Amino acid sequence: YTSNLVKGAPITVTKQNLSDGKAQAIIVNSGNANTCNSDGIEVARQMCTLVEKYTGIPASDVVVASTGVIGQKLSIEPIRNGMQTLVDGLGYNNSDDANEAIMTTDLKKKSVAVTFTLDGKECHIGGIAKGSGMIHPNLATMLVFITTDAAISSEMLEKALREDVKDTFNMTSIDGDTSTNDTLCVLANGLAGNREIIVEGEDFEIFKQALRAITEKMCRMIAADGEGATRMMEVRVSGAADEDSARKIAKSIACSSLVKTAVFGADANWGRVLCALGYSGAQVDVGAVGVDFISEKGEIAVCRDGSGVEFSEEKAKEILLEDSIIINVTLRDGNASAKAFGCDLTYDYVKINGDYRT
Amino acid sequence: YTSNLVKGAPITVTKQNLSDGKAQAIIVNSGNANTCNSDGIEVARQMCTLVEKYTGIPASDVVVASTGVIGQKLSIEPIRNGMQTLVDGLGYNNSDDANEAIMTTDLKKKSVAVTFTLDGKECHIGGIAKGSGMIHPNLATMLVFITTDAAISSEMLEKALREDVKDTFNMTSIDGDTSTNDTLCVLANGLAGNREIIVEGEDFEIFKQALRAITEKMCRMIAADGEGATRMMEVRVSGAADEDSARKIAKSIACSSLVKTAVFGADANWGRVLCALGYSGAQVDVGAVGVDFISEKGEIAVCRDGSGVEFSEEKAKEILLEDSIIINVTLRDGNASAKAFGCDLTYDYVKINGDYRT
Repeated sequence: YTSNLVKGAPITVTKQNLSDGKAQAIIVNSGNANTCNSDGIEVARQMCTLVEKYTGIPASDVVVASTGVIGQKLSIEPIRNGMQTLVDGLGYNNSDDANEAIMTTDLKKKSVAVTFTLDGKECHIGGIAKGSGMIHPNLATMLVFITTDAAISSEMLEKALREDVKDTFNMTSIDGDTSTNDTLCVLANGLAGNREIIVEGEDFEIFKQALRAITEKMCRMIAADGEGATRMMEVRVSGAADEDSARKIAKSIACSSLVKTAVFGADANWGRVLCALGYSGAQVDVGAVGVDFISEKGEIAVCRDGSGVEFSEEKAKEILLEDSIIINVTLRDGNASAKAFGCDLTYDYVKINGDYRT
Repeated sequence: YTSNLVKGAPITVTKQNLSDGKAQAIIVNSGNANTCNSDGIEVARQMCTLVEKYTGIPASDVVVASTGVIGQKLSIEPIRNGMQTLVDGLGYNNSDDANEAIMTTDLKKKSVAVTFTLDGKECHIGGIAKGSGMIHPNLATMLVFITTDAAISSEMLEKALREDVKDTFNMTSIDGDTSTNDTLCVLANGLAGNREIIVEGEDFEIFKQALRAITEKMCRMIAADGEGATRMMEVRVSGAADEDSARKIAKSIACSSLVKTAVFGADANWGRVLCALGYSGAQVDVGAVGVDFISEKGEIAVCRDGSGVEFSEEKAKEILLEDSIIINVTLRDGNASAKAFGCDLTYDYVKINGDYRT
């Protein structure tokens, strides 16, 4: 869930419903966040009750989520009127419709699936996500729904997820704003028939790897489709004193408005990278910092030992004009590393958000 | 000085020169930050030595500052060649020229002066500043030079300044990036002839008030002239549990990209204000929050008790279209208050920074 103190009403209701670790259905609306409304919790509960009425699944086993504008009352009517259609549309191959329905300012649908083997049984993990604006550590208006047929206990599933998000969703930022409505949930039904994962060990590691394949891909997709984004930026930090420092530095660079506008302009302005590193709050030997820009067009060194090196501006431009670029930062403080996922800051980000509500 | 770990070479040299609390001259260049250059400290020292050569003021009594692009070598030649002209231009009424010379992407010169009385003597404080981008708590590429003829000890002057910046320069943000080269300095020469301020008391309070008049005005001017800004935004928080909370909340709102784009669009999107308050890190009773938008066109209540209230969108638009707006946030957690100064996030911010270096 979001770490924002101001939480959407659906978050409160979902938390209550998930207190026993069990859920069997998800209901989501987009366009209205159902947040900061005096009747918000009541409306979120009504959504769950409607699910019970139309599917027989207890209201207390429903995950409810909303994304959109904050502070406008959400009418239950259109949801009630659409329930029969919704339920009629349920089926194994229809997650694409759900994926499309949860989009707000997203331009692309985001879904990923992987197959893996546990205990000799074929298992699957699949997920759908919406992202776009307000994506910021820790989380943001990011709705992510992941399902798996692997058999894994509720405790171990939660453990796998918590360990995963530190390096994935909590390292993804579009605009530094943490939404009130973020929800990431994973449901497992055990239908694959593998021996249930109830402790750490080889099976748990295999499951975590499969989960990471899903989540890291999703983070890249969410960053690439950030509001107004023209290119995805991945910041890699290595040689940091510890993991916390590595994460702080990577996030600080990925979140800097000046780095983000430089990426938009395909400008090899590595000074801004150093600047963001410098105010990250991590202790760094700044005289040892190296910076490279990398993309499918090649790689180029722009900073060594904390100072600029001669480089071809033309080559740098060619590298930075790609859709997906990597800012690689090397330190000499230790062995820890981290990645952060972000995007450029563009005219369109301003346009989309200067006139989102009205 | 900047709190960025990556510090401009001039900062290192100025710190050394000011270790005795004494300075008699200031030399500044714009266009090149002299930061992340292997020969940076040497060049900054050469600038001080040139001042000594042309004015007789010891190099160790010189404040040196640079602002501009990071990571490109600064040539001493144009500075050496211009020294005679610079020195010939010194005079009581020429601070305007200096003010113009330190501008980078600033559109307006920023200077303020006040007259006040201490110990029956007329005293003055005046200052010049450059701001624009990279303005963020704590400080940013903000160069501020304040002078006074009041007699005040070095210790008390530093005390007055430290107490002041908590509520002024450290509450001003343009884009969340903390520059490597911020410098704020106050020089006092005692020529007013008042009894020297060496302890707290009435004279010290009068001096602090006069200083605040300068600094608060400067912060508003810097925010209003933020890169690409079309309007100044002042966030006022009252009723907070403590000063630290009040400051955190005010800063979080003033720094939110989503609040800033809403202000650009003159959109009364108070939900984003609550959202930024929610992730500020301060503990707040969110069910008690009130939000009003205020400008010269009037004021309008948009949120009470953490929920939206009915309001006229037309009236809100009229208020928000002014050049200078106030976002007033009332809490019911205590008696502390704070102000933060910022500006909107616009197409021009992206344009200026997408192509600043090349």
